[in-house]
Formats: sequence, structure tokens, C-alpha cells
Amino acid sequence: MTGVVERAGALMAAEIEEQPAVLAALLDRAGELAAVARAVARRAPRFLLITARGTSDHAALYAKYLTEITQSRPAGLVSPSTMTVYGARPDLTDVLYLAVSQSGASPDLAESTAVARACGATTVAVTNAAGSALAGAAEFAVELGAGDERAVAATKTYTAQLLALYLLLGGDAGAAAGLPDAAARTLAAAPAAHDAAARYRFATRIVTTGRGYSYATAREGALKLMETCYLSAHAFSTADLLHGPVAMLDREVPVIAVVSPGRGGDAARPVVDRLRETGADVLVVGGADGGLAVAGSDLPEELLPVLEILPLQQLAWRLARDRGIDPDAPRGLSKVTRTR
Amino acid sequence: MTGVVERAGALMAAEIEEQPAVLAALLDRAGELAAVARAVARRAPRFLLITARGTSDHAALYAKYLTEITQSRPAGLVSPSTMTVYGARPDLTDVLYLAVSQSGASPDLAESTAVARACGATTVAVTNAAGSALAGAAEFAVELGAGDERAVAATKTYTAQLLALYLLLGGDAGAAAGLPDAAARTLAAAPAAHDAAARYRFATRIVTTGRGYSYATAREGALKLMETCYLSAHAFSTADLLHGPVAMLDREVPVIAVVSPGRGGDAARPVVDRLRETGADVLVVGGADGGLAVAGSDLPEELLPVLEILPLQQLAWRLARDRGIDPDAPRGLSKVTRTR
Repeated sequence: MTGVVERAGALMAAEIEEQPAVLAALLDRAGELAAVARAVARRAPRFLLITARGTSDHAALYAKYLTEITQSRPAGLVSPSTMTVYGARPDLTDVLYLAVSQSGASPDLAESTAVARACGATTVAVTNAAGSALAGAAEFAVELGAGDERAVAATKTYTAQLLALYLLLGGDAGAAAGLPDAAARTLAAAPAAHDAAARYRFATRIVTTGRGYSYATAREGALKLMETCYLSAHAFSTADLLHGPVAMLDREVPVIAVVSPGRGGDAARPVVDRLRETGADVLVVGGADGGLAVAGSDLPEELLPVLEILPLQQLAWRLARDRGIDPDAPRGLSKVTRTR
Repeated sequence: MTGVVERAGALMAAEIEEQPAVLAALLDRAGELAAVARAVARRAPRFLLITARGTSDHAALYAKYLTEITQSRPAGLVSPSTMTVYGARPDLTDVLYLAVSQSGASPDLAESTAVARACGATTVAVTNAAGSALAGAAEFAVELGAGDERAVAATKTYTAQLLALYLLLGGDAGAAAGLPDAAARTLAAAPAAHDAAARYRFATRIVTTGRGYSYATAREGALKLMETCYLSAHAFSTADLLHGPVAMLDREVPVIAVVSPGRGGDAARPVVDRLRETGADVLVVGGADGGLAVAGSDLPEELLPVLEILPLQQLAWRLARDRGIDPDAPRGLSKVTRTR
């Protein structure tokens, strides 16, 4: 193995390992995020709109479930294009408008956030870049403090986004106290994720699935596999899986199912069982006895997505390496994507 | 060729051809839909929530763009699971809650609609089944009148859903008068779609893309190819395509790009050009000179999704036949999916 190959993926590997410390640092700043949460709560928003792209879009999806379930408020993911390409100027009184972006540099997110603010929304930017255009466009800016993320495939900023959104949307910091330790314990099971990578060495397609909060994990896991391993990875809500996509599943398309303790996992389990009955190759992520185990079964269900993604990051990293791809710098991608 | 093979796909082929007549019949009932639209408008809803699954979810996505762009109201796609699996009971005052389903038979849609109604929303069901559980659960029920759809892959109910949603959400029936004729002219170009199918005979993966309204078409086109041809078909918003998924694109993964006249197409075109520069195999759907031409360039941009999907339905049908699959009855699928 040459030195070049040794170094391939070194950034992503290091950033995966930093996650327990990043989560702990964010929890240390829970008071700061709670202050923003209180300022937002004083506006009594009735609806949440969230805008994001790429990995951050999966954090946005998590925030949507969190808001609908724990705050009993409707939430929607916004397509920035309706404001930037089509020029829509909606009445956003009573709306909390959240923009989530690692770099905060994509012009369409900054522009749509500025428009939303002008249209009456309470705007909050969640970024890893305090001085970014997006942070400047929003009324409130929350910094992840995850440190520079240098690998193109986002890892530590994703889990930091999830925890920041949890804290911003009324989550209890005390209930999350065990998260850094649970993350460290989950990461310690890396050999299982690396073994699973060997199994997919020659796969060209893969399907990921989950329900409720875990659907966000399935989406993000699929993106990691796409961008680092060039796999054609499809994510489906476990509920949608029976509405068409199941036709393309056979013994040749492996399935990764995120099934955690809790109501989402309970709803997904019968579908996963049915998939197994059809002969599909299913790897379960989540819980203590999943094919890829996840610690933290004592944590609230809504915090488990922070942990569920960890073995999938390890799997994507290892599979890329096995395939001779440098996961730090996949072809065709740059760290900051500027969409107009 | 045996009689069995001759008959394979006969239902789907017939239903594809029925679409101009189904659209004309729906336009004849425009007054009926306008009456529901007026009744809803009297409630002055500030937000639109839409719930649907499978093909209907793509009609819901269309309705989201339509509402945000033409009505300047925010809109979100609802995950029924937050109400049915997690028991959320949001305050839905001032909310228009639209449920879209061909069969109206999936228990979770009927249940979440009943919950939304109890939570204060104005509820409208759009189905092709007047007596369905979903139609009964909603305050207002709109029937598509598309006639029985017997092929498992939805075609005529999808385009009827798009037109019904256009009429329900403030669209002008007069502006849509040319739609049935434009649909017939688009369908008449079937040989081009059938030729394109030959090109994908041995493809295992495909990517579809579009922006704005056309993103709904890209999603539905991908689902058609997945469910009838067992292709691993990925749909991406053209804006998202640069955020990760582009890494899995190479000369081996063909791209179908929906690029219609209008602002969505204008925003997508530079990305499609960049894809071509990287050597990707790109087939353009839309406009008079697309690889798969679509008529109706004199119609408003928001009506073009009704036409853009037609050559993709023909492509999926033909490709399934070429592969020896019966597109009327793909494996693993039933016409009515009951998700709880």
C-alpha cells in the first residue's frame, strides 16, 4: 500500500472520530442555543419552514419530524427555487424559517432566507461558518462550532446539525447528556461496519430505508454511499417502499434498514420482515442487536438519528477505500456548492 | 411472439392513450372543481399541507410548487406517520389539508385526514374513487373521473391529479383548454420514446432530473422506470444534483433531463450543459426540440408537467416490453397499497 493510499480518506476518518467531542462541545453551549430557542418561542410561530440542500437537507427532514411530533406544529421543507427562480413572495407571518447549511455559502439559501425575513418570517441560520452570507442574512445565527470540515463528504457537521436542531426546537439538553458517550461507544464498533463494507464490494445498487426519524438517516446514509462509493443508493421511507420501488428489489439489490427502538422502528419492522421473506439481503442498523449495532437505547427516540448515521459513515468510508476511491475527494464534487 | 406477450402491457398502453379524453372530461367539470376552490378560499387558508404516497406524492409535489409560486402561500408535504405512528395532534387552524390518492384506500391517509380535520384543517380529498375511505374522511371530496385504472403503474390518474390540483388551487380552466389537444399531439410522438427505450435496453441505472415544476416530472418518471422496468432510477432536483449525487454520474449512467420552456427549465439548462460537458449521456424531455418533444409550448409553464410525463410513460412501457416484463403487473406490487 503506498503512502498516497494510506492517506486517502484520512480527513473523513478523522472527522468521523471527532464526533463525540463535537457533540460534547455543542452540549456545553446548550444555554446559548436555548436562548435562541426562547427568543423564537416568544414569536409563537405556528409553522416551521426549513431550507437546505444535500446533507443538510437530511438534517432539515429530521427537524420536520421533530417539530411535527414533539411540538405539534406543521413543518415543511422549502424549495428555495420558488423564491429565487420563480420570485414567489409569500406571507410568512407566524412562520419560523430555518436555513441549514454547513458552509452557509450557497447564494440561493442566503437569498431565500433574506426574502423570507422580508416576508415576515422569524429566520434562523444554522451553519458551521459564523461569517457566512447565510448567517448574515438571518435574524438569528447559530454556529455549530464543529471546526473546519475538510473532507467533501460531510460527517461531523451533519450530527452537529441534528443536535443543534434538537436543542433549537425545544429538546432537553439534559436528556442528551449521554449522547457523546453513546456516540463514542457506537463508533467503537467500527470493525462490524468495515466487515459489512466487504459484503458490498461489488454491489452497484443498494437501497436504504427507515421510517419516522430514521428516514432522515436512511436518506443521509444513501447520500454518503453515493458520493463516496459511486453506488446507486436509493433511500425510501419504509412506508413508501411498498408503493412501487419494491418492484426493483430482488436478491441482487441489498437493503440497509434503519430500525431503532421506538415507534418509527416498530412501524418499519413488519415491512423489513416482509422484505426478508422475499429473499432480499437485509442489513439492519440500530438497536443493540442490529447487524450494525447502535448504542444509546436509553436515549429518547428523537436523539437516535445522531447515532444511527455513525456506522453508515464508517461503512461508506471503508467501502470507498476498498474500491480504491479517495473518500476525502470524490470526483465531480467540491465542498461548497453554489446554486443560484 | 405469443399471445401472452402481445397482451402484456395492454392495460397500461390503453390507459396512456386515454389521457387526452380524461383531461377533456375533467375540464368539462371545471365548474364543479371551481366551486370547491371557492369554498376553500372562503376559509382563507394560510398554509397548504399535502399528504400522498407513491405516484400521488409527485402530484402533491406539483401542488406544493403551484401553491408557493402562484398563490404565494407556503406549502409542505406531510408525512402521515407523524400523526398515525407518533400520534401528533397539531393545531391546523388556517391550514388547507389536501390528501391525494388514486384508490383512496390506504388506511394511513384516511386516518391522517380525519385527524387533520379534527385538528381544525379544511380537508380536501382528491381520489379516483368516490366511495373510498379517504373521500369519506375529508370535508370536500373531488373525484378524478378517470375511469378504472387497471394497470398497476398509474398513468391517467397521475395527469388527472395534476389537472385537478391546478383547478383546485386557483388555476384558470380557460388557460388549460388546449391541454387535451396538446396531450394528444405529445402522445403522437410515441416512436421517439420507443426509440429511446432501445437505447436503455441494457442499462441498470438511470438518473432523472428537473427543476421547479419539472422536478415532479423527474420524480414520477423515475418511479415509472423503477416499477415497470426494475431500473434503479434516481430523481434529483437539478439544483441538488451538484451537491453529491453528481459523484455517481459517469458515462455509464444515462441522464434524462426534463427541461421545459419557462423559468424552471431556464434554471436547469446550465446544469444540464455542464453534465453534457462531463461526458454524461443526456436525453432532454420537453419543448419542441427536446430529444423527446413535448407539445403545448403556448400553455402556461405550470401546466407543462401534465404533458412532460407522457413520453416518459411511453418510454417506461416500451422498455418494460423490450425487457420481457409485463408493465401491467410488475412483480411485488399490488394496485392498492395499505400502509398503516
